[in-house]
Amino acid sequence: MLNEWIIEKNSFEVADIERHGSKFLLGNGFMGYRGTMEEYSAEQLVAVNLAGFFDLAEGSNWRESVNAPNPLYTVVCIDGKELNLSSLDAVLHNQSLNIRSGIHERKTVFEVNGINITLKAERFLSMTNENIMALKYTVLADKDITVILKSGIDKAVWNISGNHLDYVDEFCDGNILKLECETVQLKNKLEVYESILGLDNIENDNLLHISEIDLIANKEFEFVKFGGIYHSEGLETSKEKFLSVVDAGYDQLKKEHIAEWERIWKNSDVVIEGDKDAQLALRYSIYHLCSIAPHNTDKCGIPARGLSGQVYKGAAFWDTEMFMLPFFQFTDSKAARNLLKYRVNTLEGARRKAKEFGYEGAFFAWESQETGDDACTLFNVTDIFTGRPLRTYFKDKQIHVSADIVFAMWDYCRTTGDYSLLIDGGLTLMYECLWFFYTYSVFKPHKNRYEILDVVGPDEYHERVNNNAFTNVMVKHAADIFVLALEKVEKEFPQYFAKFNKDLDWAYDFSQKLYVPHPNENGIIEQFDGYFALENVTPEILKTRELKENEYWGGHGLASTTMTLKQADVVMMLNVFRNEYSKDIKKSNWDFYEPYTEHGSSLSACAYAIVAAEIGYTDWAYKYFIKTASVDLTGDTKQYLGSLYIGGTHPAANGGAWNTAIFGFAGVSFTDDTLDISPRLPDNWESISFTLMWKGEKLSIKATASGVKINGIENSKVTVYGKEYKK
Amino acid sequence: MLNEWIIEKNSFEVADIERHGSKFLLGNGFMGYRGTMEEYSAEQLVAVNLAGFFDLAEGSNWRESVNAPNPLYTVVCIDGKELNLSSLDAVLHNQSLNIRSGIHERKTVFEVNGINITLKAERFLSMTNENIMALKYTVLADKDITVILKSGIDKAVWNISGNHLDYVDEFCDGNILKLECETVQLKNKLEVYESILGLDNIENDNLLHISEIDLIANKEFEFVKFGGIYHSEGLETSKEKFLSVVDAGYDQLKKEHIAEWERIWKNSDVVIEGDKDAQLALRYSIYHLCSIAPHNTDKCGIPARGLSGQVYKGAAFWDTEMFMLPFFQFTDSKAARNLLKYRVNTLEGARRKAKEFGYEGAFFAWESQETGDDACTLFNVTDIFTGRPLRTYFKDKQIHVSADIVFAMWDYCRTTGDYSLLIDGGLTLMYECLWFFYTYSVFKPHKNRYEILDVVGPDEYHERVNNNAFTNVMVKHAADIFVLALEKVEKEFPQYFAKFNKDLDWAYDFSQKLYVPHPNENGIIEQFDGYFALENVTPEILKTRELKENEYWGGHGLASTTMTLKQADVVMMLNVFRNEYSKDIKKSNWDFYEPYTEHGSSLSACAYAIVAAEIGYTDWAYKYFIKTASVDLTGDTKQYLGSLYIGGTHPAANGGAWNTAIFGFAGVSFTDDTLDISPRLPDNWESISFTLMWKGEKLSIKATASGVKINGIENSKVTVYGKEYKK
Repeated sequence: MLNEWIIEKNSFEVADIERHGSKFLLGNGFMGYRGTMEEYSAEQLVAVNLAGFFDLAEGSNWRESVNAPNPLYTVVCIDGKELNLSSLDAVLHNQSLNIRSGIHERKTVFEVNGINITLKAERFLSMTNENIMALKYTVLADKDITVILKSGIDKAVWNISGNHLDYVDEFCDGNILKLECETVQLKNKLEVYESILGLDNIENDNLLHISEIDLIANKEFEFVKFGGIYHSEGLETSKEKFLSVVDAGYDQLKKEHIAEWERIWKNSDVVIEGDKDAQLALRYSIYHLCSIAPHNTDKCGIPARGLSGQVYKGAAFWDTEMFMLPFFQFTDSKAARNLLKYRVNTLEGARRKAKEFGYEGAFFAWESQETGDDACTLFNVTDIFTGRPLRTYFKDKQIHVSADIVFAMWDYCRTTGDYSLLIDGGLTLMYECLWFFYTYSVFKPHKNRYEILDVVGPDEYHERVNNNAFTNVMVKHAADIFVLALEKVEKEFPQYFAKFNKDLDWAYDFSQKLYVPHPNENGIIEQFDGYFALENVTPEILKTRELKENEYWGGHGLASTTMTLKQADVVMMLNVFRNEYSKDIKKSNWDFYEPYTEHGSSLSACAYAIVAAEIGYTDWAYKYFIKTASVDLTGDTKQYLGSLYIGGTHPAANGGAWNTAIFGFAGVSFTDDTLDISPRLPDNWESISFTLMWKGEKLSIKATASGVKINGIENSKVTVYGKEYKK
Repeated sequence: MLNEWIIEKNSFEVADIERHGSKFLLGNGFMGYRGTMEEYSAEQLVAVNLAGFFDLAEGSNWRESVNAPNPLYTVVCIDGKELNLSSLDAVLHNQSLNIRSGIHERKTVFEVNGINITLKAERFLSMTNENIMALKYTVLADKDITVILKSGIDKAVWNISGNHLDYVDEFCDGNILKLECETVQLKNKLEVYESILGLDNIENDNLLHISEIDLIANKEFEFVKFGGIYHSEGLETSKEKFLSVVDAGYDQLKKEHIAEWERIWKNSDVVIEGDKDAQLALRYSIYHLCSIAPHNTDKCGIPARGLSGQVYKGAAFWDTEMFMLPFFQFTDSKAARNLLKYRVNTLEGARRKAKEFGYEGAFFAWESQETGDDACTLFNVTDIFTGRPLRTYFKDKQIHVSADIVFAMWDYCRTTGDYSLLIDGGLTLMYECLWFFYTYSVFKPHKNRYEILDVVGPDEYHERVNNNAFTNVMVKHAADIFVLALEKVEKEFPQYFAKFNKDLDWAYDFSQKLYVPHPNENGIIEQFDGYFALENVTPEILKTRELKENEYWGGHGLASTTMTLKQADVVMMLNVFRNEYSKDIKKSNWDFYEPYTEHGSSLSACAYAIVAAEIGYTDWAYKYFIKTASVDLTGDTKQYLGSLYIGGTHPAANGGAWNTAIFGFAGVSFTDDTLDISPRLPDNWESISFTLMWKGEKLSIKATASGVKINGIENSKVTVYGKEYKK
């Protein structure tokens, strides 16, 4: 059983330094710790990446999330030589991650002067005390030998865009170190604590404990370390909090940590019988989702590369609402609500953005940080042929984010039954988003309809298009939702309704008269006005036209004048609104668009997988499911765009894997009041079992080829293949 | 006096082959004949360029005007050696063009085997018989010698995009040759006649007369040739017509030709006292305008490079309406009406174009040929860095053409007093153009106004902009004009009004609610939404950023994200609507925009010149006037864009030169009923004299520093500096 929960590798190659940083990532929502060795430093991309803590480095074009100094830094030296896996050949090496308990381990044997020295380390980021990380470290030699141990806080921080921290002060008090930092832009304080237990004769120098240790042959020498990272509201009582954890000890912290992960898995696990590969990949995806969810804060979203580093500026994208939120709303509604409240809390930034571009209402950021202002620049790609910054339209034209948020908020309300979010800022957010769309849209009097011109849809290879099907349909639904939400609030929270009373008219008119592209005579929905007139070529052909590696296909690049898509766009829409399009329409569009789709984004495959499952393309669905679910296991994704590192974890794909398992294979769908389960399992799956929170009830569901078994139904309306489920 | 009318060069250099082709161009509206030597062929860019006769070469991306075979081809050979200026050094060479009479001459002395041989040739394209060209050729040697003369129809035709003619049949009848051709695309017939007079012992071979001539020392040997080019309606009686010209003889044809040019100059000449350079340059500009005007047809416009070749596809641009039409409506209203009727006659093509891009009404072509369909492609530039075709927006976004035509039509009516054009298709054209703009524009309910989004203005370096000031103001005026024209027709031609009755309402609403950008607190009108936020750099700085010669600054190129403009845009608007903006506003905007303007189009300088004259920047005005007026004299313009030849004459600049002299320096302006003359002459100009046709009266005007003298006023209302002119 255990190996269903263990990710490991029993050898070492240089490429692992970068790759394993993401693959063996630890996270607890507050911070992420890359899967690096304790002796690694900035060059090996060690990072303690902080959620929602941003800064602009001097001379940089954009703000990014801050990586904290590393309080678990530890290196063993013999005769002045560091036992460092990145530079010294190891006799044996094993690295593993237990995704059930969120614990990282390594064991490495070095041979120095004919002596075998074994390093073992176990570490975790506490799930019960988010500021704390802990390490247990042992050294073993097969002969008596004296080694020098250096352990402390490593200030050599990995950064993509430049230095973010000024070091204000350092304290050293016996076995405790403290480093006080300030971010360079806003002078926000960051404190890093370290404590080491189990060493004698410590000398402290420059934030390092240095200790001479006389190892006795074949006798393990063990010590433990704690790290504490504090910023923002956590600062005031940081020292007391850190010391109380140290006092309670490593074992106590670990016990609580494991118990918390057990609790998490009880709500989140999906058990697949008959397919060990799928089981591991899916659980690994769920592990990442749980590692990065903001359990205790509504001040930050989930970064597009999780907490694996600063890629994409550590910012939250529409990925959260459209790919991850379903998982949370069905398994951890507190996290789901935190994520939505984060949008409510950053409404002012969205208002500022709308105003910046000449609109009103709330234009949510393409890359959202702590204030809701957009971290994205207008020049987000470098032209590979000229080296010049390229004007991109991610920031100012990819407007669907505001609709995605409205949609996700309503989905949260419907599935959890918690409509109180509406009067906790939700309805105001909806109003602001819809008013933004109303000011962005145009009315064409001679057609008596609203249109949405000059946007970028999910398929970013086609910029500044008119009437993008995905965007128009999302906005139309957002308008409908706003009207429904107004009616809900009028009924249930009448005292909140008065200020929105006047908005029903225009919102209803907008919803009724907004143009949405319909299927043509062949059942195909045109991705945007004029898409069918573009050059009819597929990604395979475009590939042969490339002049340089890492050519950007968007902008004025190769794909822009052709039918080749970066990622699911119309098919994404069919996935999102799965109850509103017939199987025939889904099939026609899947068949039509799939050959043109590059899947150049990790958001693409799961949309195709879910729709494929719905239309009976089970083999395709399975292929895309495995691709999505194992994206971070294989690490088989673009790591560089030009010279820019874009590697890291892929939370949207992690969410997409869960979505495909639950909505695709288990066939879960829902209306306002009914949950339906219509499984269509891959042939090799004997069963799929999972729990869903549905309107406050925890349902345990098991689907096999022969039927569906559901426990926990009290008041819920649940159907199976459309027929009422008999308990 | 004569040298004020002669363009000449007394030497030869290789670069002249290309340059003089345009500089010494002959034209008669039906065809143009490049300023090449009689012995030149396709390689030396000989072209008999035909107005309004278009074809698509096999494998080409666009249609272009057809160059006819050359019936004046003549070469003298001695001992098998051709006396060809392009390959044989000359002892003496002179080439000249008499712009008063439209006659081209050359005299070249070659030395072969110690014998000096002088070739002299005089040729013209008949202004009274548009199908005809004539040549008088003499050969003189200083010793007795026998030469071989080869003269006939040269089929080696210069083409930019490939072969356009299939040769269907050849006839030879003594001294007459005939070549029948068909265009490759539409199989349109083209006939070329040639006749040679004055030779004995002709052998005819392969469309050449070959004759052995025994020259007697120092005795001129002379012969004449006629060429006839027929297509379209001219075909049926071509032979009789050609023979009757031949029968009447060279001298008769020349006499009539010169008399016609005299008549033309009587209406067109502008006399400048005190500035010979300006005089010659301006007359040269007027010569070109008269050479290329469609005197006898309303089936073609004026190509952007006149009749100097196939550059810009031989197509008509907005250049005609906005830069050339004022000259014609004030000096040759028949040509002006022909040009406007050409637009009426191509309305169907404009309708097709509107439909192609999803609109209704008439979207006039960016590059208009005989059908009104747009010869422009969506990929009109090659990316110099990748060699790939670049998606350009000249065709689908430069919508102001339709408004320019409405504006020009109304200007024609107002200045000539000939409103009958309105019921001869004009009002229908106006309706179709306005309906196009109505379907292109969008209504923004929350602002209660129409806007025009996603266009390209005159400044093509900034594509897909919103609310371009020039475009919005042009459309607003077009809407106003349509309403005025409806009222005029209701009053004067009531029987034509009924079908437009219903259009008054929407057109009025559109005109009233269309947003036009107004001056900001500094008096500056923003060129388009967001222009002020672009990078603040001038063309000089951009130049230093170039990585390659002939880099295209538009598209995604260097200028696109900066404030650098290709050409006058806001200043062009101030020029067009000179009565509607104060001197202060003109000055603020001239000062603001001039430093950002590259003047990368020959349309730019004259707009700046006219406004400069209005605001008292006489030195600037003069500088830009000379630049505009001498553009084809100096040939100092871009000749290549990448590898594409874009040289040739610049009729828009020729028109711009006249506009600057008349509207700028002579200070002519007008309202619906009054002509005003408020001169502001350059210091070195003693006087400017010219004639204007104003509402059917021919006014002769002479302005000096001390006053204005006007003859010919009968019923006209004319003011000088705003005060009624006393006869």
